[in-house]
Amino acid sequence: MIKVSVMYPNTPDVTFDIDYYCNTHFSLVARLLGPALKSVAVEYGLTGAAPEEEPAFIAMGHMTFDSLAAFYAAYGPHVTELKADVPNFTNVKSVVQISEIKM
Amino acid sequence: MIKVSVMYPNTPDVTFDIDYYCNTHFSLVARLLGPALKSVAVEYGLTGAAPEEEPAFIAMGHMTFDSLAAFYAAYGPHVTELKADVPNFTNVKSVVQISEIKM
Repeated sequence: MIKVSVMYPNTPDVTFDIDYYCNTHFSLVARLLGPALKSVAVEYGLTGAAPEEEPAFIAMGHMTFDSLAAFYAAYGPHVTELKADVPNFTNVKSVVQISEIKM
Repeated sequence: MIKVSVMYPNTPDVTFDIDYYCNTHFSLVARLLGPALKSVAVEYGLTGAAPEEEPAFIAMGHMTFDSLAAFYAAYGPHVTELKADVPNFTNVKSVVQISEIKM
């Protein structure tokens, strides 16, 4: 099982519409990726390690798939459409990471 | 519901013992934090957005709690003991973020 994490850096001038991201963007993600997409999760940054510290990321979205191959097959045909929706919710470039789920 | 994410940057000279982290460190975490800890997840970095890119983080550990207050109450008394275990599995300083779980 793999997880694709899309992490939006909390830059000084960042904008992020978390409602659009959860409701509209992830509806599009679910519709385009179909049953290959096994689960989704979204988090909104509150603080860093200490209450007075800024979070490193303003928001993070996570998607799980059975395998790297399943992800590439589902995502590949829809890259352009999914990327075109990004300016509708943020002005920051995401950091994307693919991980193996260990626990 | 909040999520505490502990993210270990994938620096050029990073070392990370994922088996120790999953089995020994998270056993300690679970024992010390008790029932305030609602769930745990661990991921090991594979790639960045493209297959040839390095992941930003070599590993990530995530813990969920009912609230910030529940986390601080459970974690506060055990900070020293938990931090003392870190050199047993990595040589890199983590990025810690606390987030609100939206989905």
